Amino acid sequence: MAENFRHRCRRIIFDSNKSDEKLFDILLIIAISLSVIVVLAESIESVRSQYAGLLLGLEWGFTILFTIEYIIRIWAAEKPWKYIRSFYGIIDLLAILPSYLDLLIPGARYLMLFRIVRVLRIFRVLKLVKYIGDANILLSAIAASARKIGIFIFAVLTLVTILGSVMYLIEGPDNGFTSIPKSVYWAIVTLTTVGYGDISPQTPMGQLFASIIMITGYGIIAVPTGIVTVELSKVSSAPPGKIVCDNCGAKNHPRGAIFCYNCGASLEND
Amino acid sequence: MAENFRHRCRRIIFDSNKSDEKLFDILLIIAISLSVIVVLAESIESVRSQYAGLLLGLEWGFTILFTIEYIIRIWAAEKPWKYIRSFYGIIDLLAILPSYLDLLIPGARYLMLFRIVRVLRIFRVLKLVKYIGDANILLSAIAASARKIGIFIFAVLTLVTILGSVMYLIEGPDNGFTSIPKSVYWAIVTLTTVGYGDISPQTPMGQLFASIIMITGYGIIAVPTGIVTVELSKVSSAPPGKIVCDNCGAKNHPRGAIFCYNCGASLEND
Amino acid sequence: MAENFRHRCRRIIFDSNKSDEKLFDILLIIAISLSVIVVLAESIESVRSQYAGLLLGLEWGFTILFTIEYIIRIWAAEKPWKYIRSFYGIIDLLAILPSYLDLLIPGARYLMLFRIVRVLRIFRVLKLVKYIGDANILLSAIAASARKIGIFIFAVLTLVTILGSVMYLIEGPDNGFTSIPKSVYWAIVTLTTVGYGDISPQTPMGQLFASIIMITGYGIIAVPTGIVTVELSKVSSAPPGKIVCDNCGAKNHPRGAIFCYNCGASLEND
Amino acid sequence: MAENFRHRCRRIIFDSNKSDEKLFDILLIIAISLSVIVVLAESIESVRSQYAGLLLGLEWGFTILFTIEYIIRIWAAEKPWKYIRSFYGIIDLLAILPSYLDLLIPGARYLMLFRIVRVLRIFRVLKLVKYIGDANILLSAIAASARKIGIFIFAVLTLVTILGSVMYLIEGPDNGFTSIPKSVYWAIVTLTTVGYGDISPQTPMGQLFASIIMITGYGIIAVPTGIVTVELSKVSSAPPGKIVCDNCGAKNHPRGAIFCYNCGASLEND
Repeated sequence: MAENFRHRCRRIIFDSNKSDEKLFDILLIIAISLSVIVVLAESIESVRSQYAGLLLGLEWGFTILFTIEYIIRIWAAEKPWKYIRSFYGIIDLLAILPSYLDLLIPGARYLMLFRIVRVLRIFRVLKLVKYIGDANILLSAIAASARKIGIFIFAVLTLVTILGSVMYLIEGPDNGFTSIPKSVYWAIVTLTTVGYGDISPQTPMGQLFASIIMITGYGIIAVPTGIVTVELSKVSSAPPGKIVCDNCGAKNHPRGAIFCYNCGASLEND
Repeated sequence: MAENFRHRCRRIIFDSNKSDEKLFDILLIIAISLSVIVVLAESIESVRSQYAGLLLGLEWGFTILFTIEYIIRIWAAEKPWKYIRSFYGIIDLLAILPSYLDLLIPGARYLMLFRIVRVLRIFRVLKLVKYIGDANILLSAIAASARKIGIFIFAVLTLVTILGSVMYLIEGPDNGFTSIPKSVYWAIVTLTTVGYGDISPQTPMGQLFASIIMITGYGIIAVPTGIVTVELSKVSSAPPGKIVCDNCGAKNHPRGAIFCYNCGASLEND
Repeated sequence: MAENFRHRCRRIIFDSNKSDEKLFDILLIIAISLSVIVVLAESIESVRSQYAGLLLGLEWGFTILFTIEYIIRIWAAEKPWKYIRSFYGIIDLLAILPSYLDLLIPGARYLMLFRIVRVLRIFRVLKLVKYIGDANILLSAIAASARKIGIFIFAVLTLVTILGSVMYLIEGPDNGFTSIPKSVYWAIVTLTTVGYGDISPQTPMGQLFASIIMITGYGIIAVPTGIVTVELSKVSSAPPGKIVCDNCGAKNHPRGAIFCYNCGASLEND
Repeated sequence: MAENFRHRCRRIIFDSNKSDEKLFDILLIIAISLSVIVVLAESIESVRSQYAGLLLGLEWGFTILFTIEYIIRIWAAEKPWKYIRSFYGIIDLLAILPSYLDLLIPGARYLMLFRIVRVLRIFRVLKLVKYIGDANILLSAIAASARKIGIFIFAVLTLVTILGSVMYLIEGPDNGFTSIPKSVYWAIVTLTTVGYGDISPQTPMGQLFASIIMITGYGIIAVPTGIVTVELSKVSSAPPGKIVCDNCGAKNHPRGAIFCYNCGASLEND
């Protein structure tokens, strides 16, 4: 019967089809979101000083909750060791580790380390990743584009190094372009059309050169968009006939179909 | 004969094919646009103080006009109750309600509420929505992309939370990154290439990390563009006569489809 | 023989295939570009005060040149009246008119009018438009998208009116959002990812709302890109077999072909 | 046997298939990257003053290394003269030239020239270009789009000239729009959605006009994206075995094509 209980735990924790399994997932998503909000709130000076006690309580509440969840997952998993070493297992561990490290570090003495450990708790937002179910199509399109985008980024880096160096010569340290790395940073800010305006060309020559970069940037920003669009288009237009309805056996569903066109049943499990 | 008059009103108000029906639509569009301009103008301090009387007069003129329109619509509609509860019925009510609420609130005492009510009148711009006739193709492309774009936004939110936290550690409160939420705000401003420049990295490490975010942003901004382009391409290239879902606009249903493969709604109406 | 000379003028001025016709075009393009540069240079305070005489001389040189060109065009045109009323005829007239108006206006008394007339001379840059030969494919793609883009812009305007009004309520006049029109301006600056930073949200609520707008903007900016891409794709993938080589009669050239795949002859004239 | 050694050198230097050839490439890439980092670091005031000796040593180390590499390449090349005049040969020479020029120029007297020569050393980053192996598809898509993008840039330049001039009239010198060229610069900054904010419209009329430019910019930024996407789509979906032009990368030639339909080059080599 203990086995039975363990089996049920495993089903509730690791699956997400039946109503009790979905309820567990939803409760966990809420808990993760709340704990992330607590970390965000705690980093605000005024909130921290006013609600120190409440935040500490909530923080430890969530830490204990996630620790229990982690222990149950190890206990209930079919192959505990495989779970611990899996991507999700590591994230689940990282979600609770910083809070315990917090206890070990005397905050007053190693302030920077203390701050890093506190902020690291935000990484528990990654626990949400496992609930992004249908990211497959997007991910496969990005993965298929990865090589081309890598080449593209390499080419952009070469370009901004040269553009930044030329701008360093044109504007010089007096106009805020104090070093080549800073000019390269400016070139990236400009080429990606972010344009903070913390550094901007002051001389007519610099503004002319910046104009050329911006208009060139038009053509360059089009490249990754083109790459991803073409890959997404390929993934989307893959020939139909793959997805078969479990319920009525109908074939020929378009890629990405969620419901059977014949009987209306969910195709999610495929 | 009264019935005949009511029937004619209904035709003029609810249809837009014949010349008198079109004339009514055009006059109403002009009235809506003018009333929106009045609200915009009234919010400008100098205009408000100088033309207070004129603006009040115009405001009440439009309110009475839209009230009459609303009453006629209810009276002329085939099923008045259905119209009142419909999307356009609610908008038509919301377009006149704030002006009447205005009378009830003593402006001097509840200033914030007063201001909210005044500004709410701008929502009568939504009355224009019913005249965007051919938005169907665009809307169906966006609707078909909604699920993918939702996943995309969720992934972006996870990403900016982590990027913002790392930046909070690198730059710290002294350089304007006073809390994690503010750093996350900065990360969103940077990743979407808006780049206000109200907060910008000051340290070399911060500028290096910001550069990485910006170049990564290149690839990320390409994703929604790719999604929408592929969906628009599908919608545009679907041969005429194929079955389109009334509910979500999904096309490409195989012949004889009974349920929508995208949202599961019945296709029987076709 | 005069007829013969007039015929030759017409050929040189209005055609652009033979070497002497091309030479005329190139000389005119250079003259237009130089005259535009003169107008640009004259608007710079320091240049104007130093080279006043030179700029005036150049200005009148170009005006007389373009006047002669305009008169010859009228004289040489097959149907002078048709040319005068054509798009290019009007632009050619507008290119010389401001300089003559300049003489009539006493600069000291009507300064604003004087300035407008001076700046209007920049419109002679439009004389260059007739030399953008192959813009057809681009223009036809944009024209085919015009209706959809119009609806899109209308929807964006409705959206920014509402977003701006909400932001006006959230931030209020104290944080730079002094009126609804100014807030709408801010919403446009943000949604289009321009992000000057002259107005930016100061309160946490405002920054949260701005974040939502920016991430929504991601999806919205994708729409016109998708529309134009789909239209360009249609134009580009139009079935071959239309373009026939004058030289060897080969068919089946892809759309946009410039040279015959069989004999290498130019297909430009088609 | 010397011939044998030369042959082996040539193989290691110019090929990159076997493991020793790849090792040479990787070592060279690391050396190039490090030497670029040295130039970047040297441009930072504080680093330059502190590590002057170390940087000078590293700089000369890399210069001697690249000089040896250049000499070996000339010696080992099958046709030395062809290598010297090739694109990569010129880049390899440019990578070492500035360091030697540095010796000839008395830094104290010709400061600007001295600075230019120092910064020119950054161009050795171009030595990396030959290692971007699979850039062909991207380059051919860009090459095939070059003509259309050229027309697009020309049209944008005409547009910003006119927009800038109108804005110069609306805002005037008092609001930072001191000359037409500066207004044109502002128009480019706005239309490309960079938006530094160093110059921004101050008057209501100017902000209205800027809003129109920004929303128009939406449609305009879509054009190059559309062009590149369509070309990438063509390149990607061309069935293998079709004839590709060596000169411009154009595909989709009909069977038996002898000349490229895009650039007119002979296709005989295939």
